[in-house]
Amino acid sequence: MIIFSERINGMYRDVRAAINEKDKKVVHELVRSQVAGGADVMDVNLGPTKGDPVENFVWLAQTIHEVTDKPISLDSAKPDLLVAAVPRVRQALPDTRLVINSSTAAPEAMGKLIPLAAANGTGIIGLTMDQEGVPGNVEKRVECGAAFLMTAIEAGLAPQDVYLDPIILPVNVASKQPCNVMEAIRQLALVSDPPPHFIIGLSNVSQRCLMNHLINRTYLVMCLAAGLDAAIMDACDKDLVEAAVSAEVLLDKHLYSDDYIKAWRMQKGI
Amino acid sequence: MIIFSERINGMYRDVRAAINEKDKKVVHELVRSQVAGGADVMDVNLGPTKGDPVENFVWLAQTIHEVTDKPISLDSAKPDLLVAAVPRVRQALPDTRLVINSSTAAPEAMGKLIPLAAANGTGIIGLTMDQEGVPGNVEKRVECGAAFLMTAIEAGLAPQDVYLDPIILPVNVASKQPCNVMEAIRQLALVSDPPPHFIIGLSNVSQRCLMNHLINRTYLVMCLAAGLDAAIMDACDKDLVEAAVSAEVLLDKHLYSDDYIKAWRMQKGI
Repeated sequence: MIIFSERINGMYRDVRAAINEKDKKVVHELVRSQVAGGADVMDVNLGPTKGDPVENFVWLAQTIHEVTDKPISLDSAKPDLLVAAVPRVRQALPDTRLVINSSTAAPEAMGKLIPLAAANGTGIIGLTMDQEGVPGNVEKRVECGAAFLMTAIEAGLAPQDVYLDPIILPVNVASKQPCNVMEAIRQLALVSDPPPHFIIGLSNVSQRCLMNHLINRTYLVMCLAAGLDAAIMDACDKDLVEAAVSAEVLLDKHLYSDDYIKAWRMQKGI
Repeated sequence: MIIFSERINGMYRDVRAAINEKDKKVVHELVRSQVAGGADVMDVNLGPTKGDPVENFVWLAQTIHEVTDKPISLDSAKPDLLVAAVPRVRQALPDTRLVINSSTAAPEAMGKLIPLAAANGTGIIGLTMDQEGVPGNVEKRVECGAAFLMTAIEAGLAPQDVYLDPIILPVNVASKQPCNVMEAIRQLALVSDPPPHFIIGLSNVSQRCLMNHLINRTYLVMCLAAGLDAAIMDACDKDLVEAAVSAEVLLDKHLYSDDYIKAWRMQKGI
């Protein structure tokens, strides 16, 4: 699976302070530990930080790039900020794979962000929602996901450039959504061949839950079996990563060996 | 889910010695701890024990019944032994729910064991294999499972009396079978309404694997999402049981509460 590190996020106090004070050491250390845990992509979310957000994105991307060549995902709910930031980060890091996180399937958002992805050669995460908000059912998720994928393909992106995010909500307030998200993945996997990637913001499922780590790893395993192949998550949660690798061995995506966790780490060079 | 305790099995040395010496204390203690862990059904397998196997089954069933009213599953690959033992255990414990474990879908086995279940009012586990052995693919599993279910229904059993077992093999030697088993469950769940139960002998998946506990709980979670609702397993493996309960919360089968493991235990009276 493709592990998007959730840790470089201004919602965390240490990251927020690091951005505000332009303290590279904190970022370097977090990136090193996330990569050592198995992160494949560094997701970057500014959160409530001070200063020019475009400059903050550029600074963070460059700071991350000082310790890893891994792809970087620029995470914002503001399309106009992404429109301003992506070309600047592309210019600063011409050889780094970038992912836009995220667009909805609302025409206005797609109209801005899909051409941005095509013009800058980036991947893009498409949320399965439109201007009417997060769907409560499977059907609307599939409708939005298929519309996003088709629009992206028409704009010249490959299915493998697209990450559909069926939007998981906290199980403590939306008990039917974990099943709906899995079913949406199963159905959307049939829409194109090859299929797009499927991603979730994993920790949302256990927001404000007491046993959040147990819920996260249980749900990740279930979603991987349903066809998920990416998640925004904490790559330093060892139990979580080991559950994911085990699930992939059971899904016949890694060769079994007695110490398959070690084999997986060696294959990744970590 | 329905937890069949795997622990009263003569393959374990302590149980073998207890059966050979008719030592009730060992059995009582194991049953108490399995029930405290969450076991719903006590599976009984004699393994390589001395003496008359019918008498051993009767002794074990009575000994178990001295500490719990839980259902008892009589586990043998020998149809003639089950034909001899089931009426004797039924007579000894007239009010205890019994399950026959197991029949294949081979005509000879079904011809002996399905009428036995109907005549004695027991449940029955049907392996999705016939005289040709364990299927390597999904299709043959579904064919055998459907044939077993239909034969059982024609004999007067209800779908809920039937536990289909799609036969999980060790992941270290049969890497495609974990996916095939899940797909067989998904397809067989559509054969009747209400569907039968689905059960696996969980520890088979990790036989001779180094990280067997991790593999067991990862695979159980995946199978529960595919429609499994029963497993022969160690109810005293706390991490395993907690993973299963978490999966069922995420599948909206238990109400979420902050301490849902405790709530599940209270509901079970353990």
